[in-house]
Amino acid sequence: MNISHIEHVGIAVPSLDEAIPFYENILGLKCFAIEEVADQKVRTAFFQVGQTKIELLEGTSDDSAISKFIANNGGRGGIQHIAFAMADGVANALAEAEEKGCRLIDKAPRKGAEGLNIAFLHPKSTCGTLVELCEDPKKM
Amino acid sequence: MNISHIEHVGIAVPSLDEAIPFYENILGLKCFAIEEVADQKVRTAFFQVGQTKIELLEGTSDDSAISKFIANNGGRGGIQHIAFAMADGVANALAEAEEKGCRLIDKAPRKGAEGLNIAFLHPKSTCGTLVELCEDPKKM
Repeated sequence: MNISHIEHVGIAVPSLDEAIPFYENILGLKCFAIEEVADQKVRTAFFQVGQTKIELLEGTSDDSAISKFIANNGGRGGIQHIAFAMADGVANALAEAEEKGCRLIDKAPRKGAEGLNIAFLHPKSTCGTLVELCEDPKKM
Repeated sequence: MNISHIEHVGIAVPSLDEAIPFYENILGLKCFAIEEVADQKVRTAFFQVGQTKIELLEGTSDDSAISKFIANNGGRGGIQHIAFAMADGVANALAEAEEKGCRLIDKAPRKGAEGLNIAFLHPKSTCGTLVELCEDPKKM
């Protein structure tokens, strides 16, 4: 695989409205986009930090992965996933991972927030961490 | 605050010996250092990904913060903290955070892995996420 950088870090929060002021007023970051991703049942807020974005995620339904993560974490937020930017694309990376015995959540890239093509590896193969692979189709 | 980039992402793992092969063989990253931080009761392994490091953390004692995180996570690893590089230093950032009402775990910088000066904000003030502030004394 050929990872160029960490595209984003996904942080689950109980409420974007409560979390955004911490990132803006205390950390001094600037929220540059808020987007709802209907098929993942989340609302997202983005902040740029050097090469990497922070993606805050609020569940819009109790059965979203984010709402379940927070419920399993005693109602508190926390860091839910890490997303790598794949220099040679997500499909190539998935093929290589599967060939090396890594379990996949997504067998093929699908659309995520910000128009990226994304896929998740299965935490059973990553020592527990939810790992996302990304490519920006505008840059491929 | 003046954050230049994400210094590292701290990922708790049950075993470095099991986790390092995933990061090296599947993700294609290279472990460039393994270090024990005795006062935090952890062994760490580092990988560079663009501007940011991944710090894998294995607890060396059942009462380490990492061992407790994994126990609370059903015995699985996961992303434990995010660390920001502070362009104007950690002490200035702590003073500003406290003045704005943010709870601190560390009132003053202390030594962390890789010789960095570090301090943690309290998750009660960060919507649940463990946030570390860092400076490299060689670059200040």
